[in-house]
Amino acid sequence: MEHNYTDLMTKDQKLIEAYLAHAFDDSAYYGDLREAIEYSLLSGGKRIRPILTLESCVLCGGSKEDALAFASGVEMVHTYSLIHDDLPAMDNDDLRRGRPTNHVVYGEATAILTGDALLTAAFGQLAKAELPADRIVAAVRCLAQNAGAAGMVGGQVLDMAGEGRALTRQELEQLQLLKTGALISAAAELGCIAAGGTMEQRGKLHEYAMAIGLAFQIRDDMLDVTSTDQELGKPVGSDKNNEKTTFVSLLGLERCAELVEKLTEKAVDSLNGFEDPQFHVWLARLLAKRNK
Amino acid sequence: MEHNYTDLMTKDQKLIEAYLAHAFDDSAYYGDLREAIEYSLLSGGKRIRPILTLESCVLCGGSKEDALAFASGVEMVHTYSLIHDDLPAMDNDDLRRGRPTNHVVYGEATAILTGDALLTAAFGQLAKAELPADRIVAAVRCLAQNAGAAGMVGGQVLDMAGEGRALTRQELEQLQLLKTGALISAAAELGCIAAGGTMEQRGKLHEYAMAIGLAFQIRDDMLDVTSTDQELGKPVGSDKNNEKTTFVSLLGLERCAELVEKLTEKAVDSLNGFEDPQFHVWLARLLAKRNK
Repeated sequence: MEHNYTDLMTKDQKLIEAYLAHAFDDSAYYGDLREAIEYSLLSGGKRIRPILTLESCVLCGGSKEDALAFASGVEMVHTYSLIHDDLPAMDNDDLRRGRPTNHVVYGEATAILTGDALLTAAFGQLAKAELPADRIVAAVRCLAQNAGAAGMVGGQVLDMAGEGRALTRQELEQLQLLKTGALISAAAELGCIAAGGTMEQRGKLHEYAMAIGLAFQIRDDMLDVTSTDQELGKPVGSDKNNEKTTFVSLLGLERCAELVEKLTEKAVDSLNGFEDPQFHVWLARLLAKRNK
Repeated sequence: MEHNYTDLMTKDQKLIEAYLAHAFDDSAYYGDLREAIEYSLLSGGKRIRPILTLESCVLCGGSKEDALAFASGVEMVHTYSLIHDDLPAMDNDDLRRGRPTNHVVYGEATAILTGDALLTAAFGQLAKAELPADRIVAAVRCLAQNAGAAGMVGGQVLDMAGEGRALTRQELEQLQLLKTGALISAAAELGCIAAGGTMEQRGKLHEYAMAIGLAFQIRDDMLDVTSTDQELGKPVGSDKNNEKTTFVSLLGLERCAELVEKLTEKAVDSLNGFEDPQFHVWLARLLAKRNK
């Protein structure tokens, strides 16, 4: 059966945008917090993570609607992490997705609080899902594990600690598996959990996600030297300026391209046993070729 | 029946300290993140919030053990909020509980990430509780609501926005009910939820907590002018230096003392109907008289 996966992805994006646009409706807000939240949350990201949640739910026999609340929680965690990573005390980036970063527009204090509010709301979203309570508990546990000290935050700690000194390839891989891979894995696993999938399915999706996560980051490093500010929506060359070790600085562009290829095939292989993994296969290959 | 509530409180503190000391054992850590987490988490706070969780669980017919995981989650949220509030971009405080603040010791980037890790871990703790899944889901929802944009974070937003201009009493009350009251309410409500208490019990505990929370903050404002750095473990006079409106600046010390008294009696009254609310009564009166 042939599918038009680009259309499917656009449809998923629209579902997610519509959900996120109303996620903060039923709450009180103070100061410019809602504006600051939505400035970053509704700024047209690619929505790869929440799409992965929806489609992994479908892959494991559930519906997209089942996974929407979980998907939005994952995207909120992703958005908070970008806001905090961009702060002057962290990567000190002024541009994100073609627009001034949150702290440039709203100030540092509000940017910190916007991140805190989004992280808190992410778990609130999980708890709002109309799913059996044991699935929600599993999702909270999975997201906390992957987004916290042993996952994404741990990766950012390594990233900050590594600035200005050369990392080994092993150190860089560990850093990126934590910083990027862990949340992408949570995205896929939460879809499986929403569907009531098996631990075996969840394990396969974890393997898949860690492989595409690493490939994603290597591709990011490549684009940081081969792309332009305008194409990328953020300053190219920032890794070099921040004296960061990247896969390109360690391996060169050619070997990076080979590695992305290899990881993508590894991701595809880990889908063995699923009935209809074609979207996931297509997505892995799409991400390997992306230009922004 | 006579009780020695001071001993009971000390016993609760020890339970909580012991639990928190091992809360981060079964995880991987990177850089100095674990040290930074435990520097702030195990720095001898009063543990009022988690004690309230344990005792509210007992009040509603549960055991302290049932509530320990929830209690530790509440304390982690409290600790993260202190770390972020102390940051240079926020209140810019160098001293907390008699020691240099987190960012003074570990730097701003690590302090931001330490807060992020603690907030994330808090929800992980909730999900770890050995309780029926529906109680955990209710706890996640309650904590997210009270700690987030519509609660504690919202209060901090108002606090930052209010610096350097005079607030009305109504504005100040709203700010403090959000900034301090909401998390104290979550602490009490989570105890009720752990016990499988009724919505009526939860409502009463909410009333109680909001009243003692506001009294607590008014007492804080009083101590900021009447105490010394050493007694308080943080710099006195910081409100004045930050040009913050306080209950003392609005009402004067005498009317503040009356208001604390009135709120404490309101808190006590809201416990009507509980079989044995004596600890909660004692705690409300203790907090009203505290000197640090």
